Amino acid sequence: MTDRGTSLDPWYDSYAQRTAGLSASEVRALFAVASRPEVVSLAGGMPFVSALPRELVTGSIDRVMEHDAAMALQYGGGQGLRTLREHIVDIMALEGVRASAEDVVVTTGSQHALDLVTRLFIDPGDVVLAESPSYVGAIGVFRSYQAETVHVAMDDQGLVPEALRETIARLRAAGKRMKFLYTIPNFHNPAGVTMSRERRIEILDICRSNQILVLEDNPYGLLWFDEPAPQAIRSIDEDGVVYLGSFSKTLAPGFRVGWALAPHAVREKLVLANESAVLAPNSFGQYVVNAYLDAADWKAQITTFRGLYAERRDAMLAALAEFLPDLQWTTPNGGFFVWLTLPDQLDSKAMLPRAVKELVAYTPGTAFFADGRGGGQMRLSFCYPTPEQIRTGVKRLATVVNDELELIETFGTAARPAPVPDAAQTVSAPPPNMS
Amino acid sequence: MTDRGTSLDPWYDSYAQRTAGLSASEVRALFAVASRPEVVSLAGGMPFVSALPRELVTGSIDRVMEHDAAMALQYGGGQGLRTLREHIVDIMALEGVRASAEDVVVTTGSQHALDLVTRLFIDPGDVVLAESPSYVGAIGVFRSYQAETVHVAMDDQGLVPEALRETIARLRAAGKRMKFLYTIPNFHNPAGVTMSRERRIEILDICRSNQILVLEDNPYGLLWFDEPAPQAIRSIDEDGVVYLGSFSKTLAPGFRVGWALAPHAVREKLVLANESAVLAPNSFGQYVVNAYLDAADWKAQITTFRGLYAERRDAMLAALAEFLPDLQWTTPNGGFFVWLTLPDQLDSKAMLPRAVKELVAYTPGTAFFADGRGGGQMRLSFCYPTPEQIRTGVKRLATVVNDELELIETFGTAARPAPVPDAAQTVSAPPPNMS
Repeated sequence: MTDRGTSLDPWYDSYAQRTAGLSASEVRALFAVASRPEVVSLAGGMPFVSALPRELVTGSIDRVMEHDAAMALQYGGGQGLRTLREHIVDIMALEGVRASAEDVVVTTGSQHALDLVTRLFIDPGDVVLAESPSYVGAIGVFRSYQAETVHVAMDDQGLVPEALRETIARLRAAGKRMKFLYTIPNFHNPAGVTMSRERRIEILDICRSNQILVLEDNPYGLLWFDEPAPQAIRSIDEDGVVYLGSFSKTLAPGFRVGWALAPHAVREKLVLANESAVLAPNSFGQYVVNAYLDAADWKAQITTFRGLYAERRDAMLAALAEFLPDLQWTTPNGGFFVWLTLPDQLDSKAMLPRAVKELVAYTPGTAFFADGRGGGQMRLSFCYPTPEQIRTGVKRLATVVNDELELIETFGTAARPAPVPDAAQTVSAPPPNMS
Repeated sequence: MTDRGTSLDPWYDSYAQRTAGLSASEVRALFAVASRPEVVSLAGGMPFVSALPRELVTGSIDRVMEHDAAMALQYGGGQGLRTLREHIVDIMALEGVRASAEDVVVTTGSQHALDLVTRLFIDPGDVVLAESPSYVGAIGVFRSYQAETVHVAMDDQGLVPEALRETIARLRAAGKRMKFLYTIPNFHNPAGVTMSRERRIEILDICRSNQILVLEDNPYGLLWFDEPAPQAIRSIDEDGVVYLGSFSKTLAPGFRVGWALAPHAVREKLVLANESAVLAPNSFGQYVVNAYLDAADWKAQITTFRGLYAERRDAMLAALAEFLPDLQWTTPNGGFFVWLTLPDQLDSKAMLPRAVKELVAYTPGTAFFADGRGGGQMRLSFCYPTPEQIRTGVKRLATVVNDELELIETFGTAARPAPVPDAAQTVSAPPPNMS
């Protein structure tokens, strides 16, 4: 599905060049199967919204309809609701960010902020630097603007500064134009690791001295387990960082309310780009989120979410230790994801159909690379299934892994289907509620 | 504001080429002034949502929170809610369109459908054909994708087929690549005219034989006054037309729920582009709109809106006949807008500050052209102000027009400020709630 059309399509010759980067996932059909109730899905990134007391939401909606209905039903401004932006400033202060509501732009989820920032900066052929691995939805956006995504190595302290320096030097020597570094410093999706304080300072410094903007994506920052993450990169520097935030994980994704905090000149352009794309983010959702922040004890609710997800993280780590003790995985201190490394002989994408047959689903690591890597890894999510389901899922996964290893021991690697060779196809975008 | 940055902007050299097309309106500050309550604004395109009985909306929201809360708060699919798409198919049938819910994509307002279709088809330098004048928000989108918008003449029967043929021939001879014709056939924004049935057939035929896609934008179609508009262009042909619809005018814009109906292969790409840009349109708004369509007598509500807007149209036409009898204007049979032509000596943009000083606002015609034309026209909206306010506003406008004419008679055209010469600047995008 990476071609620009088919000969049955009368508009085959009319599409823009950028559509070559629009590819459906080859695992999409599998994910549809995986959404059956008997399958334990460790694939999705859906927050567990059932833990949000219904009355907190209905109370907020009732207040909006009572006091602000005419405005909530009407077009709003392209920058977003002023009072909501003031709340957002308070929220960011929890991660050390000092900002003015003037420099916040509300967007249709932080995904659209990612799209709009890319639109502002990327000409075809420009380079985006990203962690190795990186968020599948970001790789898709960069591709849709014909950027080249270049991955930079990370370890359990996050992005590796020396690798960043080397990559920049190599790309510069090759005459490449690097526009920004895309990073998820906290509870990384998919890797589950957190960038250390020292690394944040050093990496910002490297980017500044190379005139590379930092795009800091932080949807999970408040969902820490054992201790808070270091303060945001944006807390160190105002001019060099565009910060992306979201209510999708701390409240609910269904309102599609996220935001960007940007240097002033960038913010002006972001508002114009937002207006051009959607006129304005949805007023109704903004008013409801605003009313929720006005009246509900949202910090207590975030504490509830933290406890919930921490329990699930613990369940996953315990199950991995019990059922797959010989494998390696990351130990996230927050967020939704564990990154699992398979034995050398196994391929996560090739193995997925067998896993789904065993009633467990995960996201193959190939989804998180722009260059075809990732076959040796997978992302496991602990956000949506219960601790019991997580244990069952990991147990089933262990069965699949061990069966595969046994097959290969008996018959050699011919026992597994060859991985899809086309690198373009391996940047598979799972359906959005899976990512 | 048409430059890509200023020397005070540290990212001045980093922006993408397409940002050259991102320009704030020079009348933006004026519109801010015009939003003061003492000003009668004939500038905006805001529907009169106060005419929507509040209990219809709260009833729909209550049903969503009672029965579908977990889904409405969660991420949805990139194509949009299935049951809502089925309702949309029924709505389009009212305008003669036969479609399958499979070929509908729900978007963040129809503005985002416009953005996504342009993203799929436009490479820099490609041509979009559009009516003369055309919707300011569409011109902005085309510009943001570096398309060249070429206007085609229209008269009181809509787009002129002979002009379309000549334009296509001329552009083809010049080696231009024409991707689609953007048209608003019903109650045109800003021109207020409706394309005749015969023209629809002929124009579709011209586009088909030239392999040019038709992008039919129809936000106002159900809001007819004296008689329904002819059936949609999409009713004549499935493969050659992408049809855009919206709930912003028939329900409320604050939910940002619109849609595209596209040929199958285009639809597949639209869903992928939608997912890349925003993951999914907001679930909550979709569920509320769906519940409204399930349970409310929405056809009766549209009849109410029709009566309301017809009364305001009548008030505007009567006021124009009373206070500006020597000028020319269009007589819309639906929608929100009248297009007024000024005496030759006057310039609608230059005159706007004086109008706002006299406490009336309008949108200068220059906003609706990509090529600097429109100084001799203005758009007057009758959707939001009451009939009494409309009469007051037109009376004030007449004072401004007559004062200007008198000044020019006395002092010559030096009496008015020179129009801004840079054509790029004249494609002013008013803030979205004004467009």
